[in-house]
Amino acid sequence: MSNSLKLKQLLVDIHTHCYLPRYAAFLRSRSIAPKIFTSGDRERLLILDDEPATGRPVGPQYWDRNEKLKFMDTHDIDISIVSTANPWLDFLPPDKAHTLATELNVDLEEYCATSPVVSMPGSHDIKRLYGFGLLPLVPDIPVDAILQVIKQISSLSHLKGVIMGTKAVGKGLDDPSLEPVWEALSAAGLVVFLHPHYGLGSGAKEAWGNRDNGHVLSLALGFPMETTIATTRLILAGVYDRHPDLKILLAHSGGALPQLSSRLASCISHDPVVSSRLQHDARYYVSKLYFDAVNYGPEEMGFVADVIGRGSAYANSQDQRGDRMSGYTRMLFGTDHPFFPPLDGEGRWKSVLENIRAIEGVKGWGEAEKAAVLGGNALELFLQGPM
Amino acid sequence: MSNSLKLKQLLVDIHTHCYLPRYAAFLRSRSIAPKIFTSGDRERLLILDDEPATGRPVGPQYWDRNEKLKFMDTHDIDISIVSTANPWLDFLPPDKAHTLATELNVDLEEYCATSPVVSMPGSHDIKRLYGFGLLPLVPDIPVDAILQVIKQISSLSHLKGVIMGTKAVGKGLDDPSLEPVWEALSAAGLVVFLHPHYGLGSGAKEAWGNRDNGHVLSLALGFPMETTIATTRLILAGVYDRHPDLKILLAHSGGALPQLSSRLASCISHDPVVSSRLQHDARYYVSKLYFDAVNYGPEEMGFVADVIGRGSAYANSQDQRGDRMSGYTRMLFGTDHPFFPPLDGEGRWKSVLENIRAIEGVKGWGEAEKAAVLGGNALELFLQGPM
Repeated sequence: MSNSLKLKQLLVDIHTHCYLPRYAAFLRSRSIAPKIFTSGDRERLLILDDEPATGRPVGPQYWDRNEKLKFMDTHDIDISIVSTANPWLDFLPPDKAHTLATELNVDLEEYCATSPVVSMPGSHDIKRLYGFGLLPLVPDIPVDAILQVIKQISSLSHLKGVIMGTKAVGKGLDDPSLEPVWEALSAAGLVVFLHPHYGLGSGAKEAWGNRDNGHVLSLALGFPMETTIATTRLILAGVYDRHPDLKILLAHSGGALPQLSSRLASCISHDPVVSSRLQHDARYYVSKLYFDAVNYGPEEMGFVADVIGRGSAYANSQDQRGDRMSGYTRMLFGTDHPFFPPLDGEGRWKSVLENIRAIEGVKGWGEAEKAAVLGGNALELFLQGPM
Repeated sequence: MSNSLKLKQLLVDIHTHCYLPRYAAFLRSRSIAPKIFTSGDRERLLILDDEPATGRPVGPQYWDRNEKLKFMDTHDIDISIVSTANPWLDFLPPDKAHTLATELNVDLEEYCATSPVVSMPGSHDIKRLYGFGLLPLVPDIPVDAILQVIKQISSLSHLKGVIMGTKAVGKGLDDPSLEPVWEALSAAGLVVFLHPHYGLGSGAKEAWGNRDNGHVLSLALGFPMETTIATTRLILAGVYDRHPDLKILLAHSGGALPQLSSRLASCISHDPVVSSRLQHDARYYVSKLYFDAVNYGPEEMGFVADVIGRGSAYANSQDQRGDRMSGYTRMLFGTDHPFFPPLDGEGRWKSVLENIRAIEGVKGWGEAEKAAVLGGNALELFLQGPM
């Protein structure tokens, strides 16, 4: 990384979504969720299985690259690592998923490669847009087809990782058939951005009850709980023991995983089935993950950093104690754009400002730590290699 | 409270369960869960709907008061506020639930009233055991029957609150028919100990996947998620706006609610259905709750206190900022005895020591804060009145 780049404090958004035009067109062709449909004079998106049938308004911010850049300019975001929004290709048959993944990866590479360069001295080779590619993770896909697309993504220089849901090829992230996939992703150095879509799935109807709470329960609780469960199952399956270099980035700061991680460690150590299965305390594995800084509160920010920082205390080989002054290095700013638009229209988005203020409000963090979370960590993780 | 009592630092366990002999006998008479059955030469308990059919070993620690006192002595616990373990009376028809609640409350009063006094000067009127009573919270129960039992509990001087699951009379804690119940509990000054049992309910099978992880997922994740969802629904229903003096104590430090509380606040403010429904920011309501200190990690302890402490910043009427140095006042030590026994037998329990060490390890807390969480807060909350 050039010194000039390190000197300027860049704001990098690693949690920002799009439906590329090819994907949006495909959603418009569908009659069941996920689908884009026209209601009155505007388009709406039905994305979740358990959401009200009216869905939510959808517009060019989802597919128009100029809108993404405009949003970035409004919020002084220098670089975005863009990913397709859920539900990705999860709902497709294997052939279609494979074809569309390959095509959309090429589309996203072009979307990024032809984007403006970052406006700063000596950075003429850094673009404003990079991307997470898509894998054809659907039931009955041959593992070779997945490996082939990992190879494709590795060859596209503006794609820096993959975005992935929690179902994988239908049985979750603890499915033994994924071993070659983890192996290939680890070897390629691609970051796996793990993102929820299903919430509590079939249990949601019972869990959320009868009262109309809009999307609040599924988004505020269901999404983070899904990520928490998926990551815990992955840890319990020993994936990190076998692939210690795997780089997994958790959406929404890992949901509830940080707060439940000591309880998880305790439950593991008290359970005869699981207690001797893993090489390390659960809290060690949690500290090997990356976390977006999308949690909306300074206390949450600081706590996630505490949990990452303490991980070394729980590695069997070490006994030193970490804290938020070391844990900040695995936290990365994000916006979740174009979701959570302000209810009252124009200007800077409340949802974005909340996370920036939360990062700036963490007790104990100085300018260096805040700058790292706002951009420096993302530059290290995604752009160090090829620059 | 007497000065001498304040001087000695008592250890008070507010999260400790029993199956009173009458309840255990009833479980033995059943052929479906919850049930106690004999396998080989010992008894086992099947308690969760989705647990392996072998259940778990169960013994006198569940029903014998001497075992409870022995456990307390082993861990230097001065006072325990004992509650019936889940699933309480949830699975019973209304008449049986009503009868059994009334009988078990009398049993528990006697269990406590005849217990030894705390061994310290000037405390001859303080017993070592107090209790949470049971309400007949089952579908189709007349609300008057519930109110009648609240009255009974208020008249039993060693019962200081009620323990409650998340289903209430079948529809959850946001059921409008509970209004008179909240009103009566609030007026009586009884603490509501909210405790999980169902985990993710019907969604668990899908959520936990196919691999054998023992009880880890349902206990480490399902339980705290259930509490989180139930409390969030209660907040969203405006229960705290209508009953601001209600004292609700959350098991397992509120599960994931503290870590998801800023996301919850943000999702509420971005949702057209809910955004104008509540009087305060969600984080304010979270700070009005009480939290047991059963989360097994010092970082979790400190974070929960941060989240409680910041609540005043989110009351519409105030703007000062709190932190863990004010938030500790609503956290109370607990053991979850007789659950989580050590896998390797005798002596002090790992699960208990973990929480004591976690409380003692919170950054920023001095002796006064630690002593308050270990016992002082419980004395204030449960014993201030009658002493």
